[in-house]
Amino acid sequence: MDNGTQHNANAWRQTRHQLPEVGWTEIMATFSIVEHLKSLNGDVSYGKTFIDTKSRQGMINEQEWDRAAERAEENGVPASFIAELEQGHTGAVIQFDTGRSGPHVAYRVDIDALPIKESKDAAHEPVKNEFQSQIPGAMHACAHDGHTAIGLGIATYISEHLQDLIGRITVIFQPAEEGSRGAKAVVNKGWLDDVDYFLSGHIGIASLAVGEIAATSSEFLATTKFNVSFHGTSAHAGAKPEEGCNALLAAATAATQLHAVPRHSAGASRINAGYLNAGSGRNIIADTAELHGETRGSTTDINAFMIKEARRIIEASALMHNVDYQFTIVGQGEAAVCDEEWKQWVPAALQNSRLITNVHASMAVGASEDVTVMMNHVQKQGGKATYMIFGTPLKAGHHHPAFDFDEKVLQTAAAACLQPLVTQIWTASEEK
Amino acid sequence: MDNGTQHNANAWRQTRHQLPEVGWTEIMATFSIVEHLKSLNGDVSYGKTFIDTKSRQGMINEQEWDRAAERAEENGVPASFIAELEQGHTGAVIQFDTGRSGPHVAYRVDIDALPIKESKDAAHEPVKNEFQSQIPGAMHACAHDGHTAIGLGIATYISEHLQDLIGRITVIFQPAEEGSRGAKAVVNKGWLDDVDYFLSGHIGIASLAVGEIAATSSEFLATTKFNVSFHGTSAHAGAKPEEGCNALLAAATAATQLHAVPRHSAGASRINAGYLNAGSGRNIIADTAELHGETRGSTTDINAFMIKEARRIIEASALMHNVDYQFTIVGQGEAAVCDEEWKQWVPAALQNSRLITNVHASMAVGASEDVTVMMNHVQKQGGKATYMIFGTPLKAGHHHPAFDFDEKVLQTAAAACLQPLVTQIWTASEEK
Amino acid sequence: MDNGTQHNANAWRQTRHQLPEVGWTEIMATFSIVEHLKSLNGDVSYGKTFIDTKSRQGMINEQEWDRAAERAEENGVPASFIAELEQGHTGAVIQFDTGRSGPHVAYRVDIDALPIKESKDAAHEPVKNEFQSQIPGAMHACAHDGHTAIGLGIATYISEHLQDLIGRITVIFQPAEEGSRGAKAVVNKGWLDDVDYFLSGHIGIASLAVGEIAATSSEFLATTKFNVSFHGTSAHAGAKPEEGCNALLAAATAATQLHAVPRHSAGASRINAGYLNAGSGRNIIADTAELHGETRGSTTDINAFMIKEARRIIEASALMHNVDYQFTIVGQGEAAVCDEEWKQWVPAALQNSRLITNVHASMAVGASEDVTVMMNHVQKQGGKATYMIFGTPLKAGHHHPAFDFDEKVLQTAAAACLQPLVTQIWTASEEK
Amino acid sequence: MDNGTQHNANAWRQTRHQLPEVGWTEIMATFSIVEHLKSLNGDVSYGKTFIDTKSRQGMINEQEWDRAAERAEENGVPASFIAELEQGHTGAVIQFDTGRSGPHVAYRVDIDALPIKESKDAAHEPVKNEFQSQIPGAMHACAHDGHTAIGLGIATYISEHLQDLIGRITVIFQPAEEGSRGAKAVVNKGWLDDVDYFLSGHIGIASLAVGEIAATSSEFLATTKFNVSFHGTSAHAGAKPEEGCNALLAAATAATQLHAVPRHSAGASRINAGYLNAGSGRNIIADTAELHGETRGSTTDINAFMIKEARRIIEASALMHNVDYQFTIVGQGEAAVCDEEWKQWVPAALQNSRLITNVHASMAVGASEDVTVMMNHVQKQGGKATYMIFGTPLKAGHHHPAFDFDEKVLQTAAAACLQPLVTQIWTASEEK
Repeated sequence: MDNGTQHNANAWRQTRHQLPEVGWTEIMATFSIVEHLKSLNGDVSYGKTFIDTKSRQGMINEQEWDRAAERAEENGVPASFIAELEQGHTGAVIQFDTGRSGPHVAYRVDIDALPIKESKDAAHEPVKNEFQSQIPGAMHACAHDGHTAIGLGIATYISEHLQDLIGRITVIFQPAEEGSRGAKAVVNKGWLDDVDYFLSGHIGIASLAVGEIAATSSEFLATTKFNVSFHGTSAHAGAKPEEGCNALLAAATAATQLHAVPRHSAGASRINAGYLNAGSGRNIIADTAELHGETRGSTTDINAFMIKEARRIIEASALMHNVDYQFTIVGQGEAAVCDEEWKQWVPAALQNSRLITNVHASMAVGASEDVTVMMNHVQKQGGKATYMIFGTPLKAGHHHPAFDFDEKVLQTAAAACLQPLVTQIWTASEEK
Repeated sequence: MDNGTQHNANAWRQTRHQLPEVGWTEIMATFSIVEHLKSLNGDVSYGKTFIDTKSRQGMINEQEWDRAAERAEENGVPASFIAELEQGHTGAVIQFDTGRSGPHVAYRVDIDALPIKESKDAAHEPVKNEFQSQIPGAMHACAHDGHTAIGLGIATYISEHLQDLIGRITVIFQPAEEGSRGAKAVVNKGWLDDVDYFLSGHIGIASLAVGEIAATSSEFLATTKFNVSFHGTSAHAGAKPEEGCNALLAAATAATQLHAVPRHSAGASRINAGYLNAGSGRNIIADTAELHGETRGSTTDINAFMIKEARRIIEASALMHNVDYQFTIVGQGEAAVCDEEWKQWVPAALQNSRLITNVHASMAVGASEDVTVMMNHVQKQGGKATYMIFGTPLKAGHHHPAFDFDEKVLQTAAAACLQPLVTQIWTASEEK
Repeated sequence: MDNGTQHNANAWRQTRHQLPEVGWTEIMATFSIVEHLKSLNGDVSYGKTFIDTKSRQGMINEQEWDRAAERAEENGVPASFIAELEQGHTGAVIQFDTGRSGPHVAYRVDIDALPIKESKDAAHEPVKNEFQSQIPGAMHACAHDGHTAIGLGIATYISEHLQDLIGRITVIFQPAEEGSRGAKAVVNKGWLDDVDYFLSGHIGIASLAVGEIAATSSEFLATTKFNVSFHGTSAHAGAKPEEGCNALLAAATAATQLHAVPRHSAGASRINAGYLNAGSGRNIIADTAELHGETRGSTTDINAFMIKEARRIIEASALMHNVDYQFTIVGQGEAAVCDEEWKQWVPAALQNSRLITNVHASMAVGASEDVTVMMNHVQKQGGKATYMIFGTPLKAGHHHPAFDFDEKVLQTAAAACLQPLVTQIWTASEEK
Repeated sequence: MDNGTQHNANAWRQTRHQLPEVGWTEIMATFSIVEHLKSLNGDVSYGKTFIDTKSRQGMINEQEWDRAAERAEENGVPASFIAELEQGHTGAVIQFDTGRSGPHVAYRVDIDALPIKESKDAAHEPVKNEFQSQIPGAMHACAHDGHTAIGLGIATYISEHLQDLIGRITVIFQPAEEGSRGAKAVVNKGWLDDVDYFLSGHIGIASLAVGEIAATSSEFLATTKFNVSFHGTSAHAGAKPEEGCNALLAAATAATQLHAVPRHSAGASRINAGYLNAGSGRNIIADTAELHGETRGSTTDINAFMIKEARRIIEASALMHNVDYQFTIVGQGEAAVCDEEWKQWVPAALQNSRLITNVHASMAVGASEDVTVMMNHVQKQGGKATYMIFGTPLKAGHHHPAFDFDEKVLQTAAAACLQPLVTQIWTASEEK
C-alpha cells in the first residue's frame, strides 16, 4: 500500500468515525462501502443476498430502523438503496476471481459502532481534528471505523493487483459484531463454505507499538447475550404501595446479584448488566423493567456455568418482587483457536516488510469476538484461520469515550493482511 | 346542572381521556379548555400570564415539548396557539366578576395525565366504549380527565347563572399536579391572593358510592420529589471490567436500599424509586444512570426524616460503586389541613341535593396533592379551604392501567362544588 | 403503698436489674419471686403447675438452659429449686382468696430481660449507683425489672390488706414476654379462665411525667416471630468458589430485601431482621446461616401481608443463592382492644390519689405485647381488660443500652393498679 | 519409609483427624508432636522459643484459648504443657545436625484444622472407620492431619538415618496456616535464616493418582484476610424503628456488594465474606455486626485492587446504614515462585522410586498458602524453594465436609520429600 492508500484509509476512517451506526443500522456505512466496492473489479453483494434473515441475532426494532433510515436519507443515502437493505440486512461482500487456480482466501472486517457518547475533551484527537461523532450517543469506540478502512484498503489493493494474484479472494464487511449478532447470518449464506485461508484481526488490544503485530490470538471468551423483561403491577406509591409488584426492584436486585456470581477456578469469567430501563414515573410502583446483560467465559463450560447462574438469579429476582419475567438469548459467541501454522506463516510473510518491525507469535484477546463463528466454520471445512492483533498506542481503552488509535496502524494492518496473500506464504511453507 | 351538562361532562371527559398529556405538555388540553372558556362570560388567561415561569418545578426538556407540540399540531391545535404557551406554560384560568359585592370564591381542578400504558382489556370501559388513550404510554389514570370536565361544568354553570351570584369567582385549570410541580407556579402569579373560599377535590380515593362525598379531607402526605444522576466510567465488560465504575449498579443499589429506609413510628412514611434508566449496551460497564424517586410523610417531620435517609443512601450508593452523582429536588408537596367549618358548611349546603345522598365529615387521602400549596396560601391570607372527596366505585386503584370510574360522579362532584357557592352557605352559617 | 413499700420496690428492681435473664431462663428471678410470695398469705404456683409445656413458644435449647442454671447456682439458687423448673418452666403465680364473695381480679407483670449489652456510660444511673447488669450481653432494657417490682408490691399489699378486700385476686409473673412467647403457656393452664377484671400495663411508652398514667392503651401491633435456617454447600473460597452455594449471601440478601417490603396504606407495619449468624471462616463459602426476624402490623391483616411477603422473600433469597432453607414461626402476638369502661373507671378510682396527678383516657402503644393473648382470653370469657401506661421520663428508648426510668414510677404504677381493686370501682360504677 | 512407617503415618493421621484444632489452638496436636519428636535424635523447640509472639496474625481471643485448653486437658494434655504454650504459641520444630558439613535443608508441614462440621455420611471413610472428628464444628478438611503425619514420618526417618546424611536438617510443624496467619511468626524467629533448600507441599490439589506428584507449583494467590466490626444504634424494632442505625444491614449490604467487585482482566481474583454475626434479638435493631472476609489475586496487584475495592465497599455500607465501622487486617499471604531447578532435581531424585510413578514438572495451586512467606524468605537469602503436589484421588474438594484422601499418599509424599535429601540431588546436579 502506497501513501495514496494511506491517505485514503485515514479519510475513510474519519468519515465513518463521524457517522457511527450501531449494529443492524449501518446504512450509511453500507452505502459508502458498496459505492466504493462497485468501482473495483469484483462481484459485490449486499442486502438479503449477503445476509441470512433468520440467522440474525439481537435484531433492532422497526422504530430504530426507521430512525436510522431517516438519518441516512438526511445524510444523502438514496431511499432506493435503503429499501434494498430490507430492514436490517446491512454490510456487504466483494468476491474476486483471478481466473487462475489457487486457494480461496477470505478477509473479514467489522463495521458497526457502539452506543457510547464520545468524549468532547479538546485533547481527544477526533475533536481536535474535527471528525468527532455527529450521531448523538453513538461512537466508533472499538476501531471498527478503522477496520472498515482496512477492509476497503485490502479490497482496493486486490482489485489493482488482480493480475498478480491467483485463486479467489473474498472480503467481507460484517455488520453487528458488537453483541456477537452478525457473523452467523454471514456464515449461513455460505460465503465461507470453501475458504482455505481466513484472516481477520483487531486494532489495539495488546500493548504494542505501531509496526508490531501478533500473528495469532488466544483467549477468546465464549459469551451469551441476554435480555430480561420484568412485568409487575403498578400502583400509586403514596396511596397503595402494598398493591404494587415492583419490576424496577426486581431488575435492580437482579443487576446487583448477577455481578456477585462466584468467580470460576477454571479460568476467566465475566458478567455484566449493561442496560436497565424501568418504570415510568416516580410516584408509580414500576410495573415494567428491561435488563440487558451478558456472560462470558474463557471456555464454553465456564460460560455455561455463568449463564446457568444468571438464569437462576433472574428467576429469584422476579420471585423476590412477585413479578413475571421473560428471558431471551439475543447473541452467542464461541471460543476459537487460531491454527498454529500462522505463527510461522505470518512472520515469514512479513520478514522483509518495510512497515512491520516485530511479529509476536500470539497475544491474548481476553474478550469475545463474533469472528469466532467464522473461524470455527472455516476450520470445520478444513481451512486455516487466524486473527491478528495490529499494534498501536491507545488514548483510552476499547469502549471508552476517549478511545482513539494512531492512524498509522491502518497501513500496517493492511500490509499484515495482504503480505501472506501476495507471497502465498502458506504454499511456500507447504512446499518446504 | 341538568342532563345536558352531564352529557357534556361525559363527552369532555372522554375526549381528554383519549388524549392524555403528562405534566407541562398539556397543549391539547389547554387549547380545548381555552376554546370553551372563551365562549363564556369571563376573563380567560393562559401562557405566561397564567404561569410563573420560574416557579415551575420538574420542567420537561425541549425534546419532550417538541414531541408534544408536534402531536398537538397533528391533532389540530394551531401552531400559533402552541407558540402562546411558550414551552411549558400550560393550563388556564377563568375569572368571573358578578359586579356585586361578595366574597371571592376559587375552584381548582388539575388536568395532567400519567406516563402509564392503558389496559387493553376488553372489559376496560374506555376500550369497550372506544375512548381509550391514543397517546402511547400515557393515560388518565388519576381521574384528571374527569376533574377537567368538572371544572368546565363549574365554569359553564357560573357563566350561565352569573346574574344570580355575588362577588367574584375564579376557576383554575392547573397543569402538572402529578409530581407536585405546578401549584406553586399558579400561586406565585397571585390568582389566589385575595380568595376567601377555596374549593377543590378528587374523584374516588375513599370507598364511597356515587352520591356520597366527604366535605373535607385529612392525611395529606408531605412529599419531596427528587432526581439522581450517577456518573461513572465506562469500560469494556469483557476486556477490562476492573476499569469500569458502574453507574447502573450504583442506581440499582440505591433503589433497593431506598425501599429499606426504616418505617417511622410517628405516622405514615413512603418512599419510591419509580424510574431508573442506566447504561447503553450490555457489553459496556454503564457510566450513566438516572433515578427518579420520591419520599412522603404524614407530617413534615416524617418526610424530612425520609429525605435525609434517602440522601445518605444515595451518597453511599455512589461511594459503593466509586461514581459521582448529582441530587436534584424537582417537586415538593406540603401537608395541609382543611378548615373545620367545611364539615358543617358542606352538609348544610347539600342537605336538599337531589344528587348527593350522604355527606361524610372527612375522609383520609393518604397521598400527596399539589393543591396543598394553594390551600396553605389561601389560609395564610385568612381564607378558608377545603378538599372534598367525590364518591364513585373504581374498577382499579389510582395510577393502575385499568383505573376507571363511574361517570355519574362528574355531575355529583360539580353539584358538591357549586351548591356552597349558590347557597353562599358560609355567609348563612356566619349569620346564624 | 407507703414509703416502706417504695423502698422495697426500688431494691427489688435494682436486684433484678443486676441479674437480667432472657425469656425461659428466668431462674434467679423466679426463685427470688417465689421466695417472697411464699412469705405472703396466698397460694403460690410455679414450674409445670404454672406453665403449660406444649404451649411455650420460641423455647431455648438445652445448652442455653444449662448455662443459665449454672449461673443461677453460682448466684445461690438451690439445685433442687432449679430442678423444679424442669427446663424452661419459669415464672410464678400467687392466688388470694378473701373468702368473701366478689369478682375475680387478675394482675399480670412480665419478668424477662433482653439480649442487649448495657451501657457503661458513667452517667447511666445503674452504673452511677452500681446496680448495672452482671450478666454479659443481657439487660433489663424494657423495664421488666420494674414490672417485677410492681408485681411484688401489688402482691404484698394485697396480702397485708386481705381482710379489707372481697372476691379472689391473682397476680401473675409471666416469663418470656419478649418475642411474644410466654402468655399462651400461662393462659392454657387456666389461670385466667374465670377472671372478671384483668389489669396490666407498662412503664414508659408515652411521653408522660411521673404521676401521669393512661387508663387504657391502643395500637397494639399484631406480630409474627420467625427463624430461618439456610443450608448451602461449603467450598474453598480460593480454590473452588464456583462449587459453593452461599448460605451467608442468601441470609444477607433476605435481610436487606425484608426491610424493603412495601409500606401498607391501611396502617402501621413493621419488619426486622434482628439476628444473623452465618458461616464459619473467611476462606470457606458459608454453608449455613441463621436469621431471626419478625413482622408486625397495626391490624391482623397488615401483619398477615407482611409475613406473606417475608416468606416469599426468604424463598427467593434461597433460590437466588441455590441453597435450601427452613422457615419456623416461633412466636405470635395478637392485636387487642382495651374495654372502653376503663376510661371511666380508672380516672374515677384515682381521683383522690396523692400520687397520680393526671389520668389520660388512652395512649398508643405502637408495639406488640404478649399480654394481648391474655386480654383476648379474658374478654372472650366475658371479663373486662385494660393495659395502662405508667408515666416516667426515660433516659433512652426501650431496648436501648442506656434505657432507664425514674424509680418513682414504681409506686405510682402500683397505686394505679391497686386503687381500682380497693375501691371496687367497677361495682360502684355499675351501681350508678 | 517402610511399611511400619506407613502404618504409623496412618495412625498418626487418624488420631489427629479425630481431634481437629483450628489455628492457634493446636494444643493436643502440639503435645502429640512434641512427645514424638522428643523421642528422636534432634533438638525440639516449641512455645515462645518457636513462635515470635508479635508476628502472629489473626490471634484468637482468651475465651477461645481457654476452651481449647480445657478440651486438651480433658484429652490428657498435662496442664504444665499447656502453660508452656503461653496462649497461642502452638506448633513445634526439630533440628538435626549430622555433624558433617553440607547444606541446611528445611521441611515444613502445617497442622491446623478448619471450622467445618464433618460429614456424617456413612460412606465417608472417617465415619466408616470410626475416626471422625470428636470436636464439634471442627474438621481436618484440608489434609493437615495428613501433613502432620508426613512431617512426623520425615523426622522419624531422618532421626533413624542420621548417620547416612550430611549437613543440617530442620522439620517445621507450622500452626495457623489457614488464614495465612502463622508462617511469619515462624520466619521471624529465624528458623529459616540460613536454609539452602526448602521443601514443602500439599496433598491433593491437582487431579493426580497416588504415585503421581508435581515437582513444583505455580499460581499461588496473594491474599489479604480482614475483619470488620460495624457499630450502630439499637432501638425497639416495633416502637421506634426510625431511631435505629442498623449494623446487621450494613454487614449484609457489605457481604452482597463485596461479592460483586468486578473481575480483573489481568488474572484470577477472589473475594469471600465467610463469616457474619450480627444482632442479638429479632425485636431489636441490631447495633453490632462482625464480618470476616478475604481477597485474593494471582498477582500482588490484583489482590491490591480487590482489597482497595473491598475497603471502599465496606465504608459505603457503613455510610448506607449510618453506622461506624472498624476494619482490621488479620492475615496476608504472598505470591511466590518455585525455583526452576526443582523441575529437574525432583524427577532425577525420584527416577528409581518404587512409590512414585510419575513426576510432573509443575501444577497450579490456584489458592493461597502461608508457606509463600517462608519460600520468599529462603529465596531472599539465596536458598532454593519448592512446593510439591502429592497426588491422591479426593472424595470431595478441599474444605468440603466430606473431604477425604487415600492414605497411601502419606508414604509417597514422605518419599517425595526425603529422596532429594537422601540423594543430595542438588549437589549431584550442580556437579554435572
